[in-house]
Amino acid sequence: MLSYFALQVIYARRKYKISPPETTGHPEFERIFRAQANCSEYFPIFLSLLWVAGIFFHQGAAAACGVLYLHARFRYFQGYVQAAQGRLGPLYASARLLWLLMGLAVAGLLAHFLLPLSCLRALPWSLQLLRAR
Amino acid sequence: MLSYFALQVIYARRKYKISPPETTGHPEFERIFRAQANCSEYFPIFLSLLWVAGIFFHQGAAAACGVLYLHARFRYFQGYVQAAQGRLGPLYASARLLWLLMGLAVAGLLAHFLLPLSCLRALPWSLQLLRAR
Amino acid sequence: MLSYFALQVIYARRKYKISPPETTGHPEFERIFRAQANCSEYFPIFLSLLWVAGIFFHQGAAAACGVLYLHARFRYFQGYVQAAQGRLGPLYASARLLWLLMGLAVAGLLAHFLLPLSCLRALPWSLQLLRAR
Repeated sequence: MLSYFALQVIYARRKYKISPPETTGHPEFERIFRAQANCSEYFPIFLSLLWVAGIFFHQGAAAACGVLYLHARFRYFQGYVQAAQGRLGPLYASARLLWLLMGLAVAGLLAHFLLPLSCLRALPWSLQLLRAR
Repeated sequence: MLSYFALQVIYARRKYKISPPETTGHPEFERIFRAQANCSEYFPIFLSLLWVAGIFFHQGAAAACGVLYLHARFRYFQGYVQAAQGRLGPLYASARLLWLLMGLAVAGLLAHFLLPLSCLRALPWSLQLLRAR
Repeated sequence: MLSYFALQVIYARRKYKISPPETTGHPEFERIFRAQANCSEYFPIFLSLLWVAGIFFHQGAAAACGVLYLHARFRYFQGYVQAAQGRLGPLYASARLLWLLMGLAVAGLLAHFLLPLSCLRALPWSLQLLRAR
């Protein structure tokens, strides 16, 4: 998805004849550029929350939030390309999903570090798989 | 903390009436915008060093550096909001902490790959926990 | 390498007297600034693909791609500093390496989740090491 966004910026640079390193010159290019920059900026936040929630809480729940987040980000990009106003709804949706992932991650970490070690249900799936081997 | 920074950018956009996708228009907004962008840019560097140092060197030492780094970044943001000059001290402090984390990560990786496997003290905490189960 | 790029931006700021938070003012500074921003933007994408390919496919293959990617990014930065045109060749090379890492990551994940668990060759190196202990 990030590759697709980066390609849209390249196409918009060609369409509006805005050569790097310039990042301004036409409102539609600027919206596409900012949409791509914003998605890239949030990617490490998203990925670290996804991984921690997936390892310490539950892989399936984290993956479901991740798919919804990617969908919200896709709608955010498409909305922002059309008008600055169009980014708001999907942006709020993606922010809510990040907060949800953070809640899952914190819950998983608390369970991992505070519950007694014998409480195997709190073990992440990957460790259980490892033990089964 | 990154959410808090992102909210400050949103509040500054409202205060100075700078609508996306614009990123210029008022010195204070530009300082807040650049402070947030710089913190976001360094977040993946910080997190990857934190994780590698935590897994291969020592969780406690890495976590302590991480808390100090977050504190330095918070002071960086607050200093930059007031004046461009105010960002320098905390910026240098945060850079020193990243170098320290990189040193811990490299030391941990060297110990992990070069020391004999029987040298259990070099094992990261997570593996020790795993074996204890 | 990212530290080196960040230092080049700082030196260029001094050379062309462009104080933060400004990010424009001289073509060479703007090229250096965009080169550093682009490398930082792709760093989390690179690192997450490198880690997933290294854990689920093969550490050596992922590390080799990683070294080639870093080399391409270094040539990208140097080419971009001299002229905007100079960035293109290394940029395409780095993009191909990211696609290769994504291919390795997807192959590793498919093998991990679809092959029968007894097929030990598909196990990542780190788990094999763990079991050997």
